Order: sequence, then C-alpha cells, then structure tokens
Amino acid sequence: MAKNKPLILITNDDGITAPGIAAMIDVVRSMGDVVVVAPDKPQSGMGHAITINSTLRINKVNIYGVKEEYSCTGTPVDCVKIAVNKILPRKPDICLSGINHGSNMSINVIYSGTMSAAVEGAIEGIPSIGFSLCDHSIDADFTASQKIVKRIVKNVLSNKMPKDVCLNVNIPNLKHEHIKGIKVCRQARANWIEELDERKDPSGKSYFWLTGKFENYDEGSKDTDVWALDNNYVSIVPTQFDMTAHQAINTINKWKF
Amino acid sequence: MAKNKPLILITNDDGITAPGIAAMIDVVRSMGDVVVVAPDKPQSGMGHAITINSTLRINKVNIYGVKEEYSCTGTPVDCVKIAVNKILPRKPDICLSGINHGSNMSINVIYSGTMSAAVEGAIEGIPSIGFSLCDHSIDADFTASQKIVKRIVKNVLSNKMPKDVCLNVNIPNLKHEHIKGIKVCRQARANWIEELDERKDPSGKSYFWLTGKFENYDEGSKDTDVWALDNNYVSIVPTQFDMTAHQAINTINKWKF
Repeated sequence: MAKNKPLILITNDDGITAPGIAAMIDVVRSMGDVVVVAPDKPQSGMGHAITINSTLRINKVNIYGVKEEYSCTGTPVDCVKIAVNKILPRKPDICLSGINHGSNMSINVIYSGTMSAAVEGAIEGIPSIGFSLCDHSIDADFTASQKIVKRIVKNVLSNKMPKDVCLNVNIPNLKHEHIKGIKVCRQARANWIEELDERKDPSGKSYFWLTGKFENYDEGSKDTDVWALDNNYVSIVPTQFDMTAHQAINTINKWKF
Repeated sequence: MAKNKPLILITNDDGITAPGIAAMIDVVRSMGDVVVVAPDKPQSGMGHAITINSTLRINKVNIYGVKEEYSCTGTPVDCVKIAVNKILPRKPDICLSGINHGSNMSINVIYSGTMSAAVEGAIEGIPSIGFSLCDHSIDADFTASQKIVKRIVKNVLSNKMPKDVCLNVNIPNLKHEHIKGIKVCRQARANWIEELDERKDPSGKSYFWLTGKFENYDEGSKDTDVWALDNNYVSIVPTQFDMTAHQAINTINKWKF
C-alpha cells in the first residue's frame, strides 16, 4: 500500500456510462485518488483483445467528478495499457474492473472484457480485481455488490496480492442479508453449448446471432465458483495468466516427433 | 482418430487469404477432409473475443479447392464456434489454427487470435494446435514450417491429446536443416513494455498506435518457449483454459473478509 493516498485505476467492459462502473466509483472514491479509463462503448465478450490494426483515441470526460476520467475507443485491455503507460503518473496501487452487468464465472473468464482488464493489470504487476454481478439488466441493483466491493478492495489494499494473480469476483443477485459469505474457489469446468440463431436480412441472406446454453461439467463439486454462486455465496477465483498446462509437459515429451 | 478420413478444421487470425493458411492447407489436404472457416479480414490481437453485440455472416468461397471453405465476418473464436455448431457434420478430429505470421510465444498466447482459436477448440473438446512462424512478413518462407506442421499433426492424430489441453507451437524463422529439434516447454514469464506512439491527425487531435518492446523476465531458464526459439528449437507449450491460480487459493483463504 502506498504511503500517500492509494492511486486507484477503474475500468470496465460495459462502457464508461454503465451503472456498474458508477456503483464501483461511488464505493472507492473516498479510499484514494480515482482515475477512470473505460471504453466509450460496450465491449462485452472482447476477451483479451487489443487494438493493433487500427489506432486509439482517448477523450477527457467529467461524469463522476473523480481525479481524472477518460473514455477510450479501445478494448478494456487497451484501457489498462493506455492508463498505465500514458495517463497515470505512476503504477496504480490497485486496478478495479467492473462492476460488470452479468456473471463472469467459470469459462466466462476467458471471454470477458471485464476479467481480461484485470488479467492485464496482473500482467503489468498491479493488484487487480474484476467484479461482476449476476444480473445483466441495465437497472440491476448494485447495493449489495457495493458492500462486497468495499470488503474485498480493503483486503487487497492491506494484504499482499499473490504474484502474477488477479481476482475474479462474482456476486450473486441477492440482497446483502441473503448473501451467505465469500468463498475462494476454482474456476468450474463448464462450457457454452452454442445455438447459432439464424435469421434472414431483408434481401433474404442469412446472418447469425451467437447465443447458447451454459453447461456445468463440474456438478456436485463444492469447490467451484458455480457452486458458490448457486449456493448464495460470493465467489473469488484467483486467476493467473500462465496458460501452460504444466501437468501435460511429461506426456507430450513422450511423443515421437 | 476417426475410422474414416480425419475431419480437419482450419482457421487462423491473419484472414482467409493469408499465405500462412495456404501453407497449412497444403500440408494437410492429403491427410483428411479439410474444412476452412477463417476470418474475412486480419484479426491479429483479437484474443478470445467473440461477437455478441452484433451479428455474424459466413460466405462460401473457393480459394483452396478443399471440401468446404468459408470466410466469416467474426473473430477466430467465432470461426471455431460457427464451424463446430453450424458447418461441420460432426466434431472435427483436429482443429488447426495458423500458420500465423509472427510469434505467439510467451505472454502473446493471451493476445493471439490464432492461439485463442486453438484454445476454443480445446474448450469444445477438439484436439487443437496453433502454429506460428516467427516472421511477420507477408512473403515469409513457410517451407520449414510445413515440415514441422506435418510431424506435429501426425503425432496429435495418432496420440491422445491430454484432456482440456491444446498446443501452442512456435517455429523459428530458419531453414529446416538449421532447426535443432522440437522442445516441449512452459510459457516464459515475459511482458510487453508499451510505448504508445502518439501522433496528430490533420485537425491536430492526438491518436495513438499501441506498440512496445518485448521483455523476458525468465532469462536463463532453459525450460521456456523463449529459450527454445532463441536456441533454434521449435517450441511446443501445452496450453490450458483453466485460469485458476490454484496455488493462491490457500493464501487468499487466510484473508479476513
């Protein structure tokens, strides 16, 4: 923790005007100097995309009355990169992404712009947390989430985040008194079974909406984020960016190339 | 391996007309029924992005004379999803992504559209491999890479791919006789130190190109992909999509929420 006020970087993937980012800013504005760098439009499902084939712009805004606020034309990961390398006077003490409208439990971590921003924070050596509320709606109630954000941010500022790790926090859509507690979990083995919703445009040509059903292959395991959320707990999955399947190295070493 | 001819899905992130995908198709066209579903434009750096805020289209093309070929308006991960759920008659026996123009070693795995397509294949339970040649140029020489692709694809078709794992293969930019061999490695701990290249548009407003310097924090470790490539080996990193930092669960369980 910094000797002075903590420097707090906030981003998200729903865009700078989303109610979820407003809810996050309100919780932490008294905890330090807040700088917001968030996408100028929704960037859900952007995963760890970065903008390398085109250019980026940032625009100063004044929506929340914090230290500095910018909207950025890029992805959530671009926002973190541009904040750290162009906007902030020093490495922030914490990077917060969200509060996302909708769950980022299980495999969603890999598709999520919210979580990819937090992972990028970890890559850059910043204690980082992605927060998501399991409610997609624009008028989601963030009251309970705000209390959870406060508890977790305070812990991260006072404890040392493990090296090369960020946190994936999902909050069940419940009133605070109905949330049973906080569980540290692993990412459930689950998947989306796609259903490509085929439609015809006015000239009769097909186009598709990507949609699907969430399938949990870890039913019964009580150590997963899906179980925690189903059972009214907040889930925290410590998340890393080393994607090596270390356990598979020996097996593949036996192949005859 | 299928009793009939293997069904081979090919995608990439450089787009359906990239020389690297042509080089891949040429190697495997005799090994099975080849179906190509690739982006209609370059999608480098798209990571694990999927298209959920807009729609997707696919267009039948006939560039390579294989069983079926489509260009898709989406990301590399969209291509895999649409192939598996809309185009292919059954789950393919193998999913190949690339050959990418440029390295996807180390942390690049997380930004790479090529590797994200392979990871998506693994999520869908398909033996999947991303191939990258360490040469960005449009007139890269894929001759040696083609020999490497053949050796590795044959191994994957005849061995059982470990569960929930795909392969990240990077090939040094050398003649085949100068490649020393194939090393199974871990992802090096490395990072991009961004340099945002600021320019002025004709009206005097700033815009940025995201660029940077690659920094290896694993200098000296001989078990990494960066070491293998620096020493003229092909690197194979078995890659997974469980992003849980399992080793951090106990630590965070000690925090006082």
